Amino acid sequence: MIKINEHYLKLQASYLFSTIASRVADYQKKNPDREIIRLGIGDCTRALPIACIAAFHKAVDEMAADASFRGYGPEQGYAFLREAISKNDFQARGADVSADEIFISDGAKCDTGNFQEILSTDIRIAIPDPVYPVYIDTNVMSGRTGIFQDGRYQNIIYLESTRKNNYIPDLPAEPVDLIYLCYPNNPTGATITKEALARWVDFARKNKALILFDAAYEAFIRNDAIPHSIYEIEGAREVAVEFRSFSKTAGFTGTRCAFTVVPKNCLAYDESGHAHALHGLWNRRHTTKFNGVSYPVQRAAEAIYSEEGKAQVKEIIDLMSHVGGEHSPYIWINANRDSWTFFDMLLESAGVVCTPGAGFGACGQQYIRLSAFNSYENTDKAMIRLREALGK
Amino acid sequence: MIKINEHYLKLQASYLFSTIASRVADYQKKNPDREIIRLGIGDCTRALPIACIAAFHKAVDEMAADASFRGYGPEQGYAFLREAISKNDFQARGADVSADEIFISDGAKCDTGNFQEILSTDIRIAIPDPVYPVYIDTNVMSGRTGIFQDGRYQNIIYLESTRKNNYIPDLPAEPVDLIYLCYPNNPTGATITKEALARWVDFARKNKALILFDAAYEAFIRNDAIPHSIYEIEGAREVAVEFRSFSKTAGFTGTRCAFTVVPKNCLAYDESGHAHALHGLWNRRHTTKFNGVSYPVQRAAEAIYSEEGKAQVKEIIDLMSHVGGEHSPYIWINANRDSWTFFDMLLESAGVVCTPGAGFGACGQQYIRLSAFNSYENTDKAMIRLREALGK
Repeated sequence: MIKINEHYLKLQASYLFSTIASRVADYQKKNPDREIIRLGIGDCTRALPIACIAAFHKAVDEMAADASFRGYGPEQGYAFLREAISKNDFQARGADVSADEIFISDGAKCDTGNFQEILSTDIRIAIPDPVYPVYIDTNVMSGRTGIFQDGRYQNIIYLESTRKNNYIPDLPAEPVDLIYLCYPNNPTGATITKEALARWVDFARKNKALILFDAAYEAFIRNDAIPHSIYEIEGAREVAVEFRSFSKTAGFTGTRCAFTVVPKNCLAYDESGHAHALHGLWNRRHTTKFNGVSYPVQRAAEAIYSEEGKAQVKEIIDLMSHVGGEHSPYIWINANRDSWTFFDMLLESAGVVCTPGAGFGACGQQYIRLSAFNSYENTDKAMIRLREALGK
Repeated sequence: MIKINEHYLKLQASYLFSTIASRVADYQKKNPDREIIRLGIGDCTRALPIACIAAFHKAVDEMAADASFRGYGPEQGYAFLREAISKNDFQARGADVSADEIFISDGAKCDTGNFQEILSTDIRIAIPDPVYPVYIDTNVMSGRTGIFQDGRYQNIIYLESTRKNNYIPDLPAEPVDLIYLCYPNNPTGATITKEALARWVDFARKNKALILFDAAYEAFIRNDAIPHSIYEIEGAREVAVEFRSFSKTAGFTGTRCAFTVVPKNCLAYDESGHAHALHGLWNRRHTTKFNGVSYPVQRAAEAIYSEEGKAQVKEIIDLMSHVGGEHSPYIWINANRDSWTFFDMLLESAGVVCTPGAGFGACGQQYIRLSAFNSYENTDKAMIRLREALGK
């Protein structure tokens, strides 16, 4: 008899953004003429940078002739893209990351979700609350948690991010083996200083723990003192893996390209305490279960690092920064009531889509997240509608 | 202490095609002027169909303007592509598959590798020998096998495909829960009749087993009696999942698009024998760990189903059929000696790359696979070089 992975039965309801999408679709069906403004999911609405479009077209043309056609590329990504990333995103900021430590993928969602596969199921995991649900759900699927009880999964050490600690959680009181961190933060928009991040790196080194650092929003940082990469912190290479994405930086949410950094001296251990390089293990997973990113997409991503591309990306991000939070495209708002109730109310009365904080964890029960991934005009219009709906 | 998934330590050497690539790179470095002919990996060398190129460009242009820009799409793929597939690949052949049973992905390698995640680790698996290594390696990683001993992993029921049984394995003598099948076959090129495939479907139904059917090479079938899809067999919907790819059909190896069919009435069971629809479980995995295929790539794939696209694809496949096997792009050759020795000899003396049969399993130790994914001229040249190298 073919049996299912029963850990899936522990998962709560369906995936946050799918649920939002289906509620919005229902509302639109009932109100076909109502113009909905989406400040919920962190999705882009502006065209790709012109430099990316030009590179994209050029690469499609290469696929149109036998002589320049590209079949299977390296699973880890083409050297032209890995080298551009290494030089511009890391070496230019004094972070020591080489091209062959970069694995190109089709999304940070996939990478943050898949990375746990190369780790033991028998480890203690620490995950922030509120948090991007993918970190938790993929650990539930892999059997690292117990059942969901009283609003939380058993066997997860939740790192509470609240107004009290300025949305930077305290170090765990007990030893943990795997730590998820995301800065600039989704959903709170909080940033972390070098000093605070160094405390996490020290903690990981002392406990032989691993940090999975999600830096998907680093391009929104507008203050040079805030680290863009965890590798700006001394000693991080041995204990941290970093996830990046072109989704929010350059509007690649529908184009799909991201990358993960696994330093060659980043270690994990077997039961007998023998050290293994995570780089080799991830490379084995990546080459066995993935076949590389579409060639034209990788060329479009490379163009982000041209002089023209850099200027165009900065312009897009600057525009978003006007309506988003400081160093982040997100604003985390205390709704003072159940967040799904507030979501429904905003949708019904204002035609505005937010993200209910409850979808990010127990600490978000009374919060909503608004994103800046919309035009200035639409965001402005949404604010007027919100004011009316809230009677203010 | 952060611990690794120790099942990875059972994996044998590195992934087959990566090993080939590195041996070929070494040879090319030592012989920079030697023109190498690649008949190894099943990779395309001819340009994408013109219809796909036109659709690809058009979609990139849509990404260049705010009004037509597409951000996150549905994780399962756009309806335009799922509907074209349902209509052309299934309904046109009398196979009952609806659009919402189709999950678009970036590769059949990913899907065949990932699908086992939603199944229990405590199941009996039957895998052909020789076989595409991904089926085995991903089960090793998930802990379903024992160690590698005497040339095989423990706890796998190997389905031997040899000259004796015409490369169609016998039904297992014992009950099994999960069965991998691939027809037209990689690497042997063998095809299966409707009658023989029906015996597998019956076996699965009697044993409440699941068949993972890899139909990546169906476009090479040139005889109407041979099934393109397992859903042409009565009763298959309840016990089979099918994997398809545009890689070999339309030269998408570097463009990346594929799909998986999970019928809504295909079932698996929990420990207490309660049935669960695999469609819902796969949808949960797909929406949690994947974020959809690049929009322009999906538009390029859709164009395969236009009248123009169909004619262009047929022309490409017909050309390959001249140099490949019957109903398959592969030829499986008895080398009468160790296959890696033969691989090295062919590379050194003829500059021709084949795939060593040992990479596909114990039954391939004395075989090599040649692929038709090259130009007619190159394949012809390779044959002359082979004849010389073999002294014939």
